[in-house]
Amino acid sequence: MIGARGGVAVTTLVGLAALRRGLIGTEGLTTSLSPFADLSMPTFASMVASGHEIRRLSLFAEAQRLAREFRVPHPEVVEACRDELEEIDRRIRPGTALGVGARIAALAAPDVPADPSPRAAIDRVQADLAAFVAAEGLEHLIVVNVASTEPTDTPEGVPATWPELKPRLEQAGAGFLPASTLYAIAALEAGHSYINFTPSLGSAPEAVDDLARRQATRHMGCDGKTGETLLKSVLAPMFARRHLPVMSWVGHNIFGNLDGKVLDDPANKQAKVRSKDHLLGTILGYRPQTHVSIEYIESLGDWKTAWDHVHFRGFLGVPMTLQFTWQGCDSVLAAPLVLDLVRLTEAARRRGCIGRMPFLASFFKSPYGVSEQAFDRQFEMLLRWVAGATQQDGSSVSRCRPC
Amino acid sequence: MIGARGGVAVTTLVGLAALRRGLIGTEGLTTSLSPFADLSMPTFASMVASGHEIRRLSLFAEAQRLAREFRVPHPEVVEACRDELEEIDRRIRPGTALGVGARIAALAAPDVPADPSPRAAIDRVQADLAAFVAAEGLEHLIVVNVASTEPTDTPEGVPATWPELKPRLEQAGAGFLPASTLYAIAALEAGHSYINFTPSLGSAPEAVDDLARRQATRHMGCDGKTGETLLKSVLAPMFARRHLPVMSWVGHNIFGNLDGKVLDDPANKQAKVRSKDHLLGTILGYRPQTHVSIEYIESLGDWKTAWDHVHFRGFLGVPMTLQFTWQGCDSVLAAPLVLDLVRLTEAARRRGCIGRMPFLASFFKSPYGVSEQAFDRQFEMLLRWVAGATQQDGSSVSRCRPC
Amino acid sequence: MIGARGGVAVTTLVGLAALRRGLIGTEGLTTSLSPFADLSMPTFASMVASGHEIRRLSLFAEAQRLAREFRVPHPEVVEACRDELEEIDRRIRPGTALGVGARIAALAAPDVPADPSPRAAIDRVQADLAAFVAAEGLEHLIVVNVASTEPTDTPEGVPATWPELKPRLEQAGAGFLPASTLYAIAALEAGHSYINFTPSLGSAPEAVDDLARRQATRHMGCDGKTGETLLKSVLAPMFARRHLPVMSWVGHNIFGNLDGKVLDDPANKQAKVRSKDHLLGTILGYRPQTHVSIEYIESLGDWKTAWDHVHFRGFLGVPMTLQFTWQGCDSVLAAPLVLDLVRLTEAARRRGCIGRMPFLASFFKSPYGVSEQAFDRQFEMLLRWVAGATQQDGSSVSRCRPC
Amino acid sequence: MIGARGGVAVTTLVGLAALRRGLIGTEGLTTSLSPFADLSMPTFASMVASGHEIRRLSLFAEAQRLAREFRVPHPEVVEACRDELEEIDRRIRPGTALGVGARIAALAAPDVPADPSPRAAIDRVQADLAAFVAAEGLEHLIVVNVASTEPTDTPEGVPATWPELKPRLEQAGAGFLPASTLYAIAALEAGHSYINFTPSLGSAPEAVDDLARRQATRHMGCDGKTGETLLKSVLAPMFARRHLPVMSWVGHNIFGNLDGKVLDDPANKQAKVRSKDHLLGTILGYRPQTHVSIEYIESLGDWKTAWDHVHFRGFLGVPMTLQFTWQGCDSVLAAPLVLDLVRLTEAARRRGCIGRMPFLASFFKSPYGVSEQAFDRQFEMLLRWVAGATQQDGSSVSRCRPC
Repeated sequence: MIGARGGVAVTTLVGLAALRRGLIGTEGLTTSLSPFADLSMPTFASMVASGHEIRRLSLFAEAQRLAREFRVPHPEVVEACRDELEEIDRRIRPGTALGVGARIAALAAPDVPADPSPRAAIDRVQADLAAFVAAEGLEHLIVVNVASTEPTDTPEGVPATWPELKPRLEQAGAGFLPASTLYAIAALEAGHSYINFTPSLGSAPEAVDDLARRQATRHMGCDGKTGETLLKSVLAPMFARRHLPVMSWVGHNIFGNLDGKVLDDPANKQAKVRSKDHLLGTILGYRPQTHVSIEYIESLGDWKTAWDHVHFRGFLGVPMTLQFTWQGCDSVLAAPLVLDLVRLTEAARRRGCIGRMPFLASFFKSPYGVSEQAFDRQFEMLLRWVAGATQQDGSSVSRCRPC
Repeated sequence: MIGARGGVAVTTLVGLAALRRGLIGTEGLTTSLSPFADLSMPTFASMVASGHEIRRLSLFAEAQRLAREFRVPHPEVVEACRDELEEIDRRIRPGTALGVGARIAALAAPDVPADPSPRAAIDRVQADLAAFVAAEGLEHLIVVNVASTEPTDTPEGVPATWPELKPRLEQAGAGFLPASTLYAIAALEAGHSYINFTPSLGSAPEAVDDLARRQATRHMGCDGKTGETLLKSVLAPMFARRHLPVMSWVGHNIFGNLDGKVLDDPANKQAKVRSKDHLLGTILGYRPQTHVSIEYIESLGDWKTAWDHVHFRGFLGVPMTLQFTWQGCDSVLAAPLVLDLVRLTEAARRRGCIGRMPFLASFFKSPYGVSEQAFDRQFEMLLRWVAGATQQDGSSVSRCRPC
Repeated sequence: MIGARGGVAVTTLVGLAALRRGLIGTEGLTTSLSPFADLSMPTFASMVASGHEIRRLSLFAEAQRLAREFRVPHPEVVEACRDELEEIDRRIRPGTALGVGARIAALAAPDVPADPSPRAAIDRVQADLAAFVAAEGLEHLIVVNVASTEPTDTPEGVPATWPELKPRLEQAGAGFLPASTLYAIAALEAGHSYINFTPSLGSAPEAVDDLARRQATRHMGCDGKTGETLLKSVLAPMFARRHLPVMSWVGHNIFGNLDGKVLDDPANKQAKVRSKDHLLGTILGYRPQTHVSIEYIESLGDWKTAWDHVHFRGFLGVPMTLQFTWQGCDSVLAAPLVLDLVRLTEAARRRGCIGRMPFLASFFKSPYGVSEQAFDRQFEMLLRWVAGATQQDGSSVSRCRPC
Repeated sequence: MIGARGGVAVTTLVGLAALRRGLIGTEGLTTSLSPFADLSMPTFASMVASGHEIRRLSLFAEAQRLAREFRVPHPEVVEACRDELEEIDRRIRPGTALGVGARIAALAAPDVPADPSPRAAIDRVQADLAAFVAAEGLEHLIVVNVASTEPTDTPEGVPATWPELKPRLEQAGAGFLPASTLYAIAALEAGHSYINFTPSLGSAPEAVDDLARRQATRHMGCDGKTGETLLKSVLAPMFARRHLPVMSWVGHNIFGNLDGKVLDDPANKQAKVRSKDHLLGTILGYRPQTHVSIEYIESLGDWKTAWDHVHFRGFLGVPMTLQFTWQGCDSVLAAPLVLDLVRLTEAARRRGCIGRMPFLASFFKSPYGVSEQAFDRQFEMLLRWVAGATQQDGSSVSRCRPC
């Protein structure tokens, strides 16, 4: 995990440890639903966690803090998982702060190495990953980015193929590619899988996808679809199918976790807002006026509240309104998706999938290479893939290639 | 139209007249979306309206009242359609009040005939329908029930086949079958199509479906899915697919039109509440605690406001909440669905469909013979049917038979 | 406390114990605000608690259950107060189930005595109170009713004076007066103070007030104004002062604690709904259409959610809307009011107040003998009383008499 | 009226004309409530309207546009008032664009004179006002600013007394004082009254108040308290009185009228947000985290929707939530306050009030010279003033002086 002591990572790791111990149920895990019963996926017991992080904190103490401040996870669950959290904590390595932007860089501990070039950062991360695989005897490694949102747009001058990009990594300056992309390159070049759960650049560049295909590995992103945007991708198709033109869609999001603090910087916020906003036009087929705001309200902690106001026209041109309020715990919504993505990515590896994994679109706000944004159709894509993957005949591997 | 001077009928008729005159756009009409462009359907210009009604009112005056009290339709539109509304009004015949319950019967004008038996009511209605068809030279007639909700449950002792039911209609008392079912029998026996847009019994009994199939005609129902329940059928699949167990789902509906006044009678309300409530269990696969209330609040008129509160559990068992408020004009939401259903039923006739029309499930809260309650899957059924119907080869008719 | 192991009592007692230990702040306590700084009131340390209860439960276990199921009070606070809760628990005596209605009577433990007459119940309670006062060496005792809502209306045939009522208590049947009134009589006859925090009859009858005045003691009620009704009494004056006529006010309350289960019985619910509803007409000066519903939704536990929809007219007759959603923990809202009322009642005793205490109106949905329902004016009454009570000259006692 | 063809002015003028014709009731008018029945105020029939405006539009056409786009006022009412609106329109004079900021200046018609200095603008306005008074034979003139919000803060270097300020007006540049203040000076110097219904600077500077007192006239402001902020000033006292500490208060306002378009400029928005935000700290006695956003959403037109989320702590430190949604028509909320303020200002003149009028505080978000921000206490100030003003003895005038 990149950002291994952040809220999403901590909640995911506590949850995984609790699942292993039978302390909690499988709520929130799509992969525990019946259509996934016959899919060849890793069990919770077989998974081993580690990660990179630029802050110097204790994983267990962070879990305790979440329990105390946000009332989740339950303190008894955290206590019961203490040993495992401390064990994972010892494995976590210092991350890279190259290209993360000022707001995030300010959080870095002094012992985070000042990588002299992108290549140097990649090499260092790859060495950490290799050591982890060797120490634990892992069959396969999946790198998941759950770090805070970087400020960057797609940088200019990034070539479209891996052979062109590769030499640039030696000489380029710190701002050439953001950390999320360096981790993606580190993972994919070494044959690991990569998942970008954030709106950061990650493996979005063509050249990184090219790398994945050349190495016969796989990746997907970006930005986990957990709350307000999930609802948009569920509700907007209704307006389209009932031919109720949306005149405006306003979303106001308030919350107070570290993610919110980072998004308080307009540069970081911009990437997030764009990721939350674009799908309406795609689903509706026209662009209504939209407004998305995200504000850091400390007292809410990890409990994100989103208010959405949809103004639409019906028959006879009559204006009508739908409002909703969503009150969810951000990390708790995200964590099971991370576990689902890890399990499904390993299932895809076993099935021979290479490159982007479009069947995972329903998990992302901005799925790489997928234009379908309606949640129901994205979910049907997933079910069809699972149905294909669980067929007995040997032809499934070849059918998977379009992934 | 049954209930031809009620809010839904008036809005539908004003809308149809306005569409013919190009005064309004096609908002709200599913059949005007692009996937329906090649479907053989009647044009708005080719449709002729009439109906039955137990109240003595003026259609035009009712339209003016809606415009004044509820601010829709627009007064200028009503004025521009005056001639057509008055022409339709002259065609409307007195309905039957057999089995409609005390609350509705109290609305009946003195000139509504006291039909001595179900058969007598059916004969009278059939004579009216035949006269209408003859006078207007109609190719096909589709009877749509948009009258107020009847109090009745499925009456006991109704046989399962038409040959058994038919003789019972001669001797049975007034309470044997409600008016909605008598209209259905009248229509189907004469080879017309029948649509039940209300939660009343209509063509639900097996024997009535048997009649439709024997007469090689078609029918569907029941209860137009216009607002809060539409949202339930859109949102509940999201909770199911994300494995977020719903603990409770509370819906509170307030509005003040005639429909609301009729539903103020607990007997009538019960049928409606059941129709709004049952689909959650079907979609979710378990039965959360649900509560649906409907209250008559006069000041709201036709503007129904629904507040829904969904309490669900996420990962780690954490309880979270989704609330929504839906503010829509009830008749304006219903009217385009009535037009869509009429056009699609005629398309089905042209294609040779007989019996129930499951591909229309997305339009109904309780679609006859369809267990799928998720809106998106119901809509895909419709799209597949349209795609099949618009294929060029002659085999489409035979493929249609399962309808 | 009557209902001493119910949610409100448990939360009050945990809170009092926590205040004594400095474990919590004074949030929610009006009497800890600066205008009350100079008022002669009992300290938290000087207060001793006991009560009556018809259920056989452990106070500490109940507090643990609240902490576990409703997430409040905090488990560590409950644990820290264990000794004190167990000590109070040992003092609690079996209550009376006379006239509480079938729903509540079904909760009674087998050891609750079957009091043969109202007088017998009163005598038994008075003996318990006297024993408590003697054992703890109390200066004054204040009985607070926080038991579940009784189904009863003002019973017929209750005389208007204490001398007429008193002999009736010997012979009357079980249904003559509800338990809440028997406790009130028991307390007031013995010179104790009495507070009715519920909508039950309590000390409402004229004859009971007559008793209080004859015994030179004091009482007040009824029905603590904690949430939705508090908001009504805050918002309705705004509509009145701005001359914005309210056309309708709809309130929908959902929650799942024991109170909710008892209110699921229509008889019990009626008393509550009336208490929540009547004040609008008083504040506005006319009666808009109102609707109050209360539904038991188990998953919500003590977390009551109220949705209110206010439909009003503005200038030019334009209809507008205010909606609010209130999400509060019922017992946590009630408990500090109980402590405030106890402290202010003792302050009133020190000041010589006799009979009803109208200056406490702001704490109640239906304040005895007070027609003012606007919260701000009720609060000003309280501030004026406090200002009078804290004046130095000896005349304050006499000025207090109108209380 | 300054901004005499803007939404608030048009709605006020249509309303006044309709009141005169008995076409509408007095909803929204505080001064039509019973406590004001004996106050010496101008009748609607005795009031004559005119104004300044920088845009070239037709008052009647604007009223028609509001009726068409925002559904208020009612088209028939507008039609019935056509003559009066056209008559007023002929009286309206070109305003000044000095210091209004780029966003507003861009709206100015070409015939708006380019006033060479503040003094020149003042002289021109005073000549217009004098001509109006003479032509209509007015007893007294009250200038009300209902123009769009100016971007300015209190400019630096404005002296504290009128004798110091006066000479500066000759030489100062265009940006020295905003138009709202120049109108205030023009009015007050000539002995007229002045009301600032907007958050613009207006008569806020000490030197302008000094001028009013020297001329024995009166003024008040600023920023009409119509919707969301009204609710804040009603609800915040409840949290204070119940000792429920507010942790955060978030308000999100969306609407699409001209005011909204002007506020889309961050400079103009800043003044508004500050005016909406500051009162919470004053009422609560501490500063919770607050966030106010205002977004221009075109489809909403004049129908402002505000969503507020209040996060507060109760007993035992438990966090709870109040949310509200306010859906009101902005101009319709403002217009009756404008009429009330005009009538009360004339009543104050008759009573001899000089300088600021603190008893009008309840009408303003930021009342000049008044620290009390709780709506109920502000309203009591108004009632006490009215009670004093309607006493028969001659001493009332002297008691009025503190105004």
